[in-house]
Amino acid sequence: MSSSTALLTDQYELTMLASALRDGTAHRQCAFEVFTRRLPHGRRYGVTGGTGRVLEAIENFRFGEDELAQLADNRVVDERTLEWLRDYRFSGQVDGYPEGELFFPGSPLLTVRGSFAEAVVLETVVLSILNHDSAIAGAAARMVSAANGRRIIEMGSRRTHEESAVSAARVAYLAGFTATSNLEAGRRYGIPTAGTAAHAFTLLHDSERKAFESQVAALGTGTTLLVDTYDITKGIELAVEVAGPELGAVRIDSGDVGVLARQAREQLDRLGATSTRIVVSGDLDEYAIAALRAEPVDGYGVGTSLVTGSGAPTAEMVYKLVEVEDRPVAKRSSHKESRGGRKAAVRRHKETGTAVEEVVFHPDSPPELGPHDRHLQVPLIRDGQRVDGLPTLEDDRQRLRHALVTLPWEGLKLSQGEQAIPTTFRQP
Amino acid sequence: MSSSTALLTDQYELTMLASALRDGTAHRQCAFEVFTRRLPHGRRYGVTGGTGRVLEAIENFRFGEDELAQLADNRVVDERTLEWLRDYRFSGQVDGYPEGELFFPGSPLLTVRGSFAEAVVLETVVLSILNHDSAIAGAAARMVSAANGRRIIEMGSRRTHEESAVSAARVAYLAGFTATSNLEAGRRYGIPTAGTAAHAFTLLHDSERKAFESQVAALGTGTTLLVDTYDITKGIELAVEVAGPELGAVRIDSGDVGVLARQAREQLDRLGATSTRIVVSGDLDEYAIAALRAEPVDGYGVGTSLVTGSGAPTAEMVYKLVEVEDRPVAKRSSHKESRGGRKAAVRRHKETGTAVEEVVFHPDSPPELGPHDRHLQVPLIRDGQRVDGLPTLEDDRQRLRHALVTLPWEGLKLSQGEQAIPTTFRQP
Repeated sequence: MSSSTALLTDQYELTMLASALRDGTAHRQCAFEVFTRRLPHGRRYGVTGGTGRVLEAIENFRFGEDELAQLADNRVVDERTLEWLRDYRFSGQVDGYPEGELFFPGSPLLTVRGSFAEAVVLETVVLSILNHDSAIAGAAARMVSAANGRRIIEMGSRRTHEESAVSAARVAYLAGFTATSNLEAGRRYGIPTAGTAAHAFTLLHDSERKAFESQVAALGTGTTLLVDTYDITKGIELAVEVAGPELGAVRIDSGDVGVLARQAREQLDRLGATSTRIVVSGDLDEYAIAALRAEPVDGYGVGTSLVTGSGAPTAEMVYKLVEVEDRPVAKRSSHKESRGGRKAAVRRHKETGTAVEEVVFHPDSPPELGPHDRHLQVPLIRDGQRVDGLPTLEDDRQRLRHALVTLPWEGLKLSQGEQAIPTTFRQP
Repeated sequence: MSSSTALLTDQYELTMLASALRDGTAHRQCAFEVFTRRLPHGRRYGVTGGTGRVLEAIENFRFGEDELAQLADNRVVDERTLEWLRDYRFSGQVDGYPEGELFFPGSPLLTVRGSFAEAVVLETVVLSILNHDSAIAGAAARMVSAANGRRIIEMGSRRTHEESAVSAARVAYLAGFTATSNLEAGRRYGIPTAGTAAHAFTLLHDSERKAFESQVAALGTGTTLLVDTYDITKGIELAVEVAGPELGAVRIDSGDVGVLARQAREQLDRLGATSTRIVVSGDLDEYAIAALRAEPVDGYGVGTSLVTGSGAPTAEMVYKLVEVEDRPVAKRSSHKESRGGRKAAVRRHKETGTAVEEVVFHPDSPPELGPHDRHLQVPLIRDGQRVDGLPTLEDDRQRLRHALVTLPWEGLKLSQGEQAIPTTFRQP
């Protein structure tokens, strides 16, 4: 696999480029803006995910011999355009919401400025990353809220594309998940990884006892034993018999996990395994997690619903041309609201720190800032170079944690509702 | 990015391996089976997607220094396991449904045989690929049916993870899509690519006329002009004025595309552009495509709904241990149906060629085959080597086309219903 991101691109970006190079408009200075017209049905906030990966993708957006040959052999573009692409390197400016920042409909998540030529070709890969990663981040944040401080492990790799899985694990961690099962996410992003055994391990052995003995011998008494292969009550009894009351945790992956967790807790306590934790998994989403709040559950394993965005697998962001040579432009379409002109945003807060409004405005006429208000876009790329000292994934994880605390309390409700704070557009 | 697929894996596959190497069960001969318990809500058939990519992923499942260092540094497994992984190379057998074959709940889509050690570690990446690719293939096939022979172009890259986009384009083509906008899919899989211009191109120019003139100069009169940036009627008039009646196509991306297509056809015919095609796009799914059957639409561009599986972004397949040393094994869980034992499948057909039943059985006791029945699993890997002469993507595309024709007519309905043919499990 090539490390170039250049062909992760819709063909029309390059045919537009070819026409624009021919007619001389390719070098007009433009601003493109990434935003979404709506949140997924009933969601109250969005979470910016993928900004860090976008910056990497822009750096790796280079046309080598392989990429150029593909375009030449299929006559996608003409010779002049191939020559232009050969030297391509983004040299413009990018500003945007850092990862972990909340967003709302109309929030200017990313602004890309440069010549039409250098900015238009980035559209597809920028949107792919932000649409996927923000969809997962938004779902993940709701799950973390629902878990209410309990440990929550991402284990959805098998239910999504193998590369989406790695990116999903990354933004799940951003959103506050404790760990991931995905080893590549551990390598690529330094995220903690976790995992012990599946039902296959028990089935492989001549008895559940032999399986537990083997696992404890290999991984220690602090391990998590999966107790629902045959009979949960017998499984728990056996688990404590084999590992002793020092057993780290038991995992229950099927059945009515709320009832089963209560029974398991009583049984574990009776057996003296009072510090043994109970982990539940199996088709959990944010609603199931919340429903287990009153139960003695110590941790959750979440798979399918996380990696599919819990009903909203894409954030539906768009990348729109909003300025040409400082002149605002917008499509005049029948049903889609479009606002021309470059934008920035401020979030206003009450004195208590509670957010009240997302104000979107032209950068040349910023609103007055109250003591608790703050600018949301930060410089990400200047003259083609990534800005120094950009936040780490850990920084962004803290950012989201703090941002969620600023939402009005209704904003954190899982039920369907309006966006937590309104977006106000100021005329320039 | 490493080309190794080894870490696209849940940690527990490797901790199970470590325990099993320690206790001596790692070398027991096992069979794992991939199947799904249900189709997405109301769907009548599934389409096998991703088998070809699975074979590649198995070949590239190797632990190099980078992968081993990650596991060692994080103490995921012990030294003995690291040594074993260093020499890992799958040496077993894989049989399965070829791509483009239909499947139903319980169909044994893939059977992996080998030692526990060598087969268990493949679980995550095999499921990631089949779950994603089959989800997209299933949605794509319904869209192609709905398009009823008209051209249909995949253009969803921006709405999904950048690597999922490439795989989605691949299986959309498998399912009968005409082309994709994704250039990397063109390079990697030789799929036809397409695309001309977006609204940004019109907005960049001083007038719509200048934009159209530029595009026609660069791409010829056979190009597709996007006519809905400002006013569709004026856009079409201008398009024919600029390109002449030889104009290849106009594209309409917003509004009530059915009504607009009718108006556009009348207008184009009036202008003498009788062979100019009409392409529509913008939030189309299989239902919207079907609803446009009576309208003068020549082609569809489909994005979001395709890459998100049109409401079913994962196929929910599982990879279950079904045999250990020729002994059937199964979890005895409270609510999930599990059938131990290795399986194969035959599809029975009437004399007319219409499919009537999916028969699932143990390979050692196959049912008698009628003249129109056929075995569904084919050998894919023998002793670790990919079988010679496996079908190409074009072959698989034809396979699906033929398979869909064999479905009872209700099976192709888009409305919610039962699976098109029943699955029958024969006791061994």
